[in-house]
Amino acid sequence: MKLLKNRNPAVPGFKAVGLSCGIKANNIKDLALIVSDVPATVAGVFSKNRIVSPTVTWSRRALSSSGGSCRAIIVNSGNANAVVGAKGMEDCDAITKKIAEELSIPQKEVLIAATGVIGVPLPSHKILKAAPQLVLKLGRTVKNWIDASEAIMTTDLISKTDKVSYNFKGHRIAIGGICKGSGMIHPNMATMLGFLWTNAVIDSKTLKMALIEATDRSFNRITVDGDNSTNDCVIALANGEAKNLTIKANTSGYREFVKALTTISKNLASKIILDGEGATKFVTVRVQGGKTRKQAYLIANSVATSSLVKTALFGEDPNWGRIYCAVGNAGAPFDPDKVDILLNKNLLLKNGNPANLPSQKLVKAMRQHEINITIDLHGGKEWEEVLTCDLSYDYVKINAEYTT
Amino acid sequence: MKLLKNRNPAVPGFKAVGLSCGIKANNIKDLALIVSDVPATVAGVFSKNRIVSPTVTWSRRALSSSGGSCRAIIVNSGNANAVVGAKGMEDCDAITKKIAEELSIPQKEVLIAATGVIGVPLPSHKILKAAPQLVLKLGRTVKNWIDASEAIMTTDLISKTDKVSYNFKGHRIAIGGICKGSGMIHPNMATMLGFLWTNAVIDSKTLKMALIEATDRSFNRITVDGDNSTNDCVIALANGEAKNLTIKANTSGYREFVKALTTISKNLASKIILDGEGATKFVTVRVQGGKTRKQAYLIANSVATSSLVKTALFGEDPNWGRIYCAVGNAGAPFDPDKVDILLNKNLLLKNGNPANLPSQKLVKAMRQHEINITIDLHGGKEWEEVLTCDLSYDYVKINAEYTT
Repeated sequence: MKLLKNRNPAVPGFKAVGLSCGIKANNIKDLALIVSDVPATVAGVFSKNRIVSPTVTWSRRALSSSGGSCRAIIVNSGNANAVVGAKGMEDCDAITKKIAEELSIPQKEVLIAATGVIGVPLPSHKILKAAPQLVLKLGRTVKNWIDASEAIMTTDLISKTDKVSYNFKGHRIAIGGICKGSGMIHPNMATMLGFLWTNAVIDSKTLKMALIEATDRSFNRITVDGDNSTNDCVIALANGEAKNLTIKANTSGYREFVKALTTISKNLASKIILDGEGATKFVTVRVQGGKTRKQAYLIANSVATSSLVKTALFGEDPNWGRIYCAVGNAGAPFDPDKVDILLNKNLLLKNGNPANLPSQKLVKAMRQHEINITIDLHGGKEWEEVLTCDLSYDYVKINAEYTT
Repeated sequence: MKLLKNRNPAVPGFKAVGLSCGIKANNIKDLALIVSDVPATVAGVFSKNRIVSPTVTWSRRALSSSGGSCRAIIVNSGNANAVVGAKGMEDCDAITKKIAEELSIPQKEVLIAATGVIGVPLPSHKILKAAPQLVLKLGRTVKNWIDASEAIMTTDLISKTDKVSYNFKGHRIAIGGICKGSGMIHPNMATMLGFLWTNAVIDSKTLKMALIEATDRSFNRITVDGDNSTNDCVIALANGEAKNLTIKANTSGYREFVKALTTISKNLASKIILDGEGATKFVTVRVQGGKTRKQAYLIANSVATSSLVKTALFGEDPNWGRIYCAVGNAGAPFDPDKVDILLNKNLLLKNGNPANLPSQKLVKAMRQHEINITIDLHGGKEWEEVLTCDLSYDYVKINAEYTT
């Protein structure tokens, strides 16, 4: 599947490093640093969970206090630094301070993220001790970027990197990114972290707008079990090295940038779904013909999070009734007499009534690895897509057996 | 577990029957009829799914047009009579007409319900053919009631009946009931049907109020995978045979009646959870100290429907972080610094911080069959309880393999 290809995410003006500082056992990488050569404009989106890690609180505050400027992002895996009392925020302070010192930059220009077990105090002394070596090893090679992408993994089986680029009025704009997310495996928190960097010239306010648009078509449209972790975040940096004319909101240049940012975000998000241990299907639930995006999203999300639909997909059971039931269960109004449902282009339901497709044909469609469920409401022009996977024995096994 | 006891649900003035009419193979019972000797006041609550079976639409209309009066409920299993086009409503008409004829009562006093596969036309001729025999076999013995409770089963392993009674100013008020629901097994629709009957004197409007109160503390507070089926309904009949003074709203007599109705409803609802194939735990999620019931419900429901929590319970993994994460993920405001979480009386989290309970003690608590998770928000006096079960291998197995 072409989405699985990991491209070298290097972009001019950015350096990275990933190494083991001892949070995880057996010398497994657990600490990553991403640095921009010059102050970059920055934007971030964070978990909507009411309980968040101090790293999220810290980075949110730094984004406000730095005037949208950032030089570095420090990330550890193996420990979420969440629900640990006052020590959590103290550790954020100590770590960002140390990294700022080593890089000779203001502390407020260092953002922080973490992923791993919650409720266990972070062994921050290990990060502080590793800081000089971390900065020393910063580099621009593909190995640097792979190391960084590996150092943010928890239960991911493969690391996730990608890059897109395009010409904008004679300037080559590149966007690189890495992410981690555990697909069907969520031993602790299902945390999703995404980091993006670009050489584009764009102010932080416009970058934030673009990031929200992109994540609302990508990272915010993948679902495994509907949980929002305490540590989720996506952060984007733009260092202006491309020297293009500033990308302004509501211009064709902005639309091009959003399109590229959405493409890389969707590729990275798809890798999270594809990496799911236990996942045997890559499922796209598309709701089109919606009156509003919210209506389309509610319905797509209801289908994509239904355990009944997900187990039927795992069992390759052409049970369209479960899909239709989830549509009705979404809490969004629609006209039942106008609904069409297709599975990999096979019409299952036409105007709310069974299309009576030969079951043999449907069984064959269900055997595909990629399943596209399309629900057409015939009530407008809005659409939403939610990516998900099936619910398999292994999901239960991995989640039930993790700490026992 | 005492909740499992099936009591004889017979109440003076009501008759029942259950038999096989051939919708299911192998002479398995699939048709039930419940009849009141005299016109009973009636109230019903129905699925909130936007796609409903014509049986739901029919019964809703009958409840309005009959002036709150009902004599009979005809129920079939094995076929949900849902998503089958115009024939669905035609079948409801034909069946209720035939039952009315056989009983010599007005058609509008016959309600109808169904459960089973959807999208398959109902073989209504089998019901019509069986109608005379059905009416002939009506009776008041315990066998009649057991037959009726068995005839509404789909994938239930055991039938579910119960009765409560109490004295009200010298009159013995009894409430009997049966229900079906497939717990962890939802081969088709997770349909929940509940039927209750009482000899109390109570008008239909007050009965409706009481039924809503009772279901909001019972049938509406059980969750397996969060889906609302196309066919869900709970219907209550009151025939006045107890000759008590009419139960009026906002009186102590009303509160007593609601208490009894809630007790039987919660017993029946608990049986649905306990009957779950694949379920190894009976879980009560209680949120207390809530500012509003809605807030308490949203949080309890978020925990009770979290796949992460449910797989941890199956694995007997004392992962309180998953519980706390689901609390934060509920979309309801609360003060994180005030939250306590207890599991079978063991304090896991105190004022939003880990209580650092010895893990050995916690592991022991997790091994219990009954798990009580209590979340105290310390923000008010409202509470909600949601009953659920764990998410096991067998849930996936049964749901994935049903039609293949």
